Amino acid sequence: MKKYQVLFEPMGLTGEFPENTSILDCAHKLGINLVTVCSGRGTCGKCLIKLIKGPVSEVNETEKTHINPEELAQGFRLACKTNLIANCQIEIPAISLSTLQRAQIEGQEITIVSEPKVKTYQLHLTPPSFSAHQADLERLQTALSRHYQTEITTDFEILKQISSTLRENHWSIQAVINNSELIGLLSPAVRPLGLAVDLGTTKIALYLVDLISGQTLQSQGLINPQTTYGADIVSRMTTAIHSQEDAQKLREVVIDALNTSMTEMCRSLQVEPDSIVDFVVVGNTAMHHLFLGLPVKQLCKAPFTPAVDSSLDVKARELGLNSATGAYVHLLPNIAGYVGADHVAMILSTGLHRKQDITLALDIGTNTEICLSHRGSLSSLSCASGPAFEGAHIKHGMRVTQGAIEHFLIADNRIEYQTIGNGTAVGICGSGIIDIVAQLYLHGVIDRHGRMHRQAYVREKEGVLEFVIASGNGDRPDITFTQKDVREIQLAKGAIRAGIEVLLKTYNLTVKDVDEVIIAGAFGTYIDVSSAISIGMLPALPWSVFVRSVMPPAWALKWHLFLLDSAVLLRR
Amino acid sequence: MKKYQVLFEPMGLTGEFPENTSILDCAHKLGINLVTVCSGRGTCGKCLIKLIKGPVSEVNETEKTHINPEELAQGFRLACKTNLIANCQIEIPAISLSTLQRAQIEGQEITIVSEPKVKTYQLHLTPPSFSAHQADLERLQTALSRHYQTEITTDFEILKQISSTLRENHWSIQAVINNSELIGLLSPAVRPLGLAVDLGTTKIALYLVDLISGQTLQSQGLINPQTTYGADIVSRMTTAIHSQEDAQKLREVVIDALNTSMTEMCRSLQVEPDSIVDFVVVGNTAMHHLFLGLPVKQLCKAPFTPAVDSSLDVKARELGLNSATGAYVHLLPNIAGYVGADHVAMILSTGLHRKQDITLALDIGTNTEICLSHRGSLSSLSCASGPAFEGAHIKHGMRVTQGAIEHFLIADNRIEYQTIGNGTAVGICGSGIIDIVAQLYLHGVIDRHGRMHRQAYVREKEGVLEFVIASGNGDRPDITFTQKDVREIQLAKGAIRAGIEVLLKTYNLTVKDVDEVIIAGAFGTYIDVSSAISIGMLPALPWSVFVRSVMPPAWALKWHLFLLDSAVLLRR
Repeated sequence: MKKYQVLFEPMGLTGEFPENTSILDCAHKLGINLVTVCSGRGTCGKCLIKLIKGPVSEVNETEKTHINPEELAQGFRLACKTNLIANCQIEIPAISLSTLQRAQIEGQEITIVSEPKVKTYQLHLTPPSFSAHQADLERLQTALSRHYQTEITTDFEILKQISSTLRENHWSIQAVINNSELIGLLSPAVRPLGLAVDLGTTKIALYLVDLISGQTLQSQGLINPQTTYGADIVSRMTTAIHSQEDAQKLREVVIDALNTSMTEMCRSLQVEPDSIVDFVVVGNTAMHHLFLGLPVKQLCKAPFTPAVDSSLDVKARELGLNSATGAYVHLLPNIAGYVGADHVAMILSTGLHRKQDITLALDIGTNTEICLSHRGSLSSLSCASGPAFEGAHIKHGMRVTQGAIEHFLIADNRIEYQTIGNGTAVGICGSGIIDIVAQLYLHGVIDRHGRMHRQAYVREKEGVLEFVIASGNGDRPDITFTQKDVREIQLAKGAIRAGIEVLLKTYNLTVKDVDEVIIAGAFGTYIDVSSAISIGMLPALPWSVFVRSVMPPAWALKWHLFLLDSAVLLRR
Repeated sequence: MKKYQVLFEPMGLTGEFPENTSILDCAHKLGINLVTVCSGRGTCGKCLIKLIKGPVSEVNETEKTHINPEELAQGFRLACKTNLIANCQIEIPAISLSTLQRAQIEGQEITIVSEPKVKTYQLHLTPPSFSAHQADLERLQTALSRHYQTEITTDFEILKQISSTLRENHWSIQAVINNSELIGLLSPAVRPLGLAVDLGTTKIALYLVDLISGQTLQSQGLINPQTTYGADIVSRMTTAIHSQEDAQKLREVVIDALNTSMTEMCRSLQVEPDSIVDFVVVGNTAMHHLFLGLPVKQLCKAPFTPAVDSSLDVKARELGLNSATGAYVHLLPNIAGYVGADHVAMILSTGLHRKQDITLALDIGTNTEICLSHRGSLSSLSCASGPAFEGAHIKHGMRVTQGAIEHFLIADNRIEYQTIGNGTAVGICGSGIIDIVAQLYLHGVIDRHGRMHRQAYVREKEGVLEFVIASGNGDRPDITFTQKDVREIQLAKGAIRAGIEVLLKTYNLTVKDVDEVIIAGAFGTYIDVSSAISIGMLPALPWSVFVRSVMPPAWALKWHLFLLDSAVLLRR
């Protein structure tokens, strides 16, 4: 039997398979977790791939029902219906990969040229003697002046350590400089690291970056521990206003969580947290203020005034973060009371401020920020979309992890779904939730007002109608989607869609004028655009208009570890 | 009887007295505490005055025994032997005033033109609204930019207060700026203050200054509480090296003493410590390092390396000092391990670095620093003169306060002395101690080796010879000066004189080449130069060569509150 080679991008994985093997089977045999809900029957249309090079089998009728002619012309195919007839090269769009696998490749995609704003210098000093009796700091500065021309100031805590550190390291030392300030003295072998933090209302993402190579060494996601003080930012701010102690507590739980996470990451890399010499943190204005311990009382009342708009550099130790002695935390600027530094990160990472067409960019989360770039002029707003898309406030909602239903389909009156890890379903994550609402609407289970109707799979429990997705057993309850869940999603998607319409109206535009829609953020890479269109969350525009920005928060954050004051670009 | 007017300078006091009244009596009747040990008999020669204008009685023979012809030609006279014959104007040198009165006039003499380096601006802001929704900090910065052109950074703790402070003050506020940093937000009526601190090994002096008028509002002197951990700096450093806890304790006792003193001074002025917006602190290198919590281990061992030489600005709150939120403590640069920032203050205040002749300047204290200016080229050293001149380690030694013997004389085999406040003697302060040793030597009670001999007023107690100065009664012991006290003074004066000789030798000079000797520091203004020459502490040069610098530490300190980076002058 004839065999052909297939090269899968962006993984760079190659394999040899018999003629007529489906691309779906090739991928699975190579360990690539290509999504399929219908197990290759051609009913779900999820296993979308793009042909880069080499002939494959002809387009069949099933594919035409899922892919429009324009996309077919671009080389889009369904992996389950495309067979091997020669050597070929296939690109797998991020959307067609299982969630966890997508997360794994993110690290590779964001390696950037390394020019860190925090500089390190290896110094070898001559010990003091009676004929050369300079003070320790001045001795260090003299050696540094060979590398660094401007005058250097010194962190006061460094000054306290300088005499012992120089002597313990036998006068060979790695000096760490941030913006003309000596912020750390490391042993020569220590590799300087940076930490980028996306402080979401519901989720916190951390990226530990090697500042020399520019690579992300580790990343971690965790639930924001502030959620126990209120799911939304308004209730957390109310808590903080209520008492200084509670405000302190809100700050501490986040700092503790970051320290724990950092320590874990460092331990697995066998490094010390004091090799972290730089931080960049983004969050919405409320998260930003609560994180820094800034007052939020004035932020809660009209005209919703932040204490500060501009970017800030605060000593990590003043915030209670473990780090190199004098390391700074850089906070991107806020735009307004409810449009914060995380939005600035999205704008920077997507290059929205340089676009010359009409582009909408959405960062979907508990607070969804939307920016309209009208030929480079930017308008932004924030909408309270709530934590439903992150699995909260949904009866069987859960976060993106093993066992979460991430795709859902009703075909031939049968329920089909895929879980992360392909194991038993234990709940539903964001992308699954949007799929479910779309499918329920498309199959008439809910009407256009969101009202659920009694029919197959629908039952009443404690007076509330619910759609049964997966039956449990004695140990495990059924997984259902309730009338109340539908209402939560309506509120969330309604808020987002309203935001889009308000922005368009500001410029007297309609949906048809939009050239590009960028769906940013981790969640953006997971959702099914057609489902999001079906439920009215996104406007009904051709697929080609939608662009997913690969992990833009991480991108922007890492960028900031390397570029000083890039946020200045955005100063009004 | 005819009456004439006398005007006394620098007090500016005028009075009318009968013809032939002695100037001494005139002064005493006006409440001027002109020194006299012999009660006007002409034997002590202490009541030195200088005639500015108008004839007085002729110079008599007694005066000629105390005043040389050159000085007589300059107008110097003894007040007790000079009588009124017409209206006249008299200057009273600081040396002829009683110690306490001298301290009182210091405040008037050091008022300087006010151009503080910390600036304050009165701002009236428009409250935020939907049409003007700037963040609070940016609103303040916009208002400030009308006064202050460069970009302003903001102390992080100020940022935490800004929203509430602006609203509590109804948007009218006094912004405090230090070197482009917003360091304080004061109510509009608060007067900004500065605190200058001379951190001596034995004594601490504090001067609270009005930064708008330039006037010293209050001053206080106190014993350095570190003395309980060792009288000299080496034993204190040994304590600090011994354990981190002890080092911390040494730091804390000074900080606590400063806070207590500041609070007292502020209370008596009915102001809050948070109106103190600037600090300047000097001390020798060891005191400087212990005050800041810098390591001293390397300072104790050859080649005696300081952690830092250059001037520093450290947040007062990081040191634990009460102050305006973001106020800085400016520390003058150190020169070497044992020549510190206090010496730099003396050089700056005496203008030694600008002198074109050969000048010696001495700051006498527990550590005496001496600088030789050889036509503007400076060499400095420090000698361990010990705390004897400050009354410590002397059996009946005491500090400059009520009841201390400040002048001493043996005339016609009788003991005569003057106490501060003219009351009963309770001990001997520094100037009295030098007088006593000089008189004992001049009258053969001790020989040139310092050995005490049995004769009148000398007795043996517990195997040690001692000279009885004042007999006590049942409640109060005798005041004596022991053989051991003589040895202490020999060590102290020997150290100082050796320092002078070493400096002269460095430039191949002899005592005769010296054009000027500046005796700086509070103690310098009190000692009797001829006594100091008699005991060999100072070289035997004409009176006119000796200049007393009026309160130079305070001068230099105040200067630093007003001049940014003046210490740069001294950078090598």
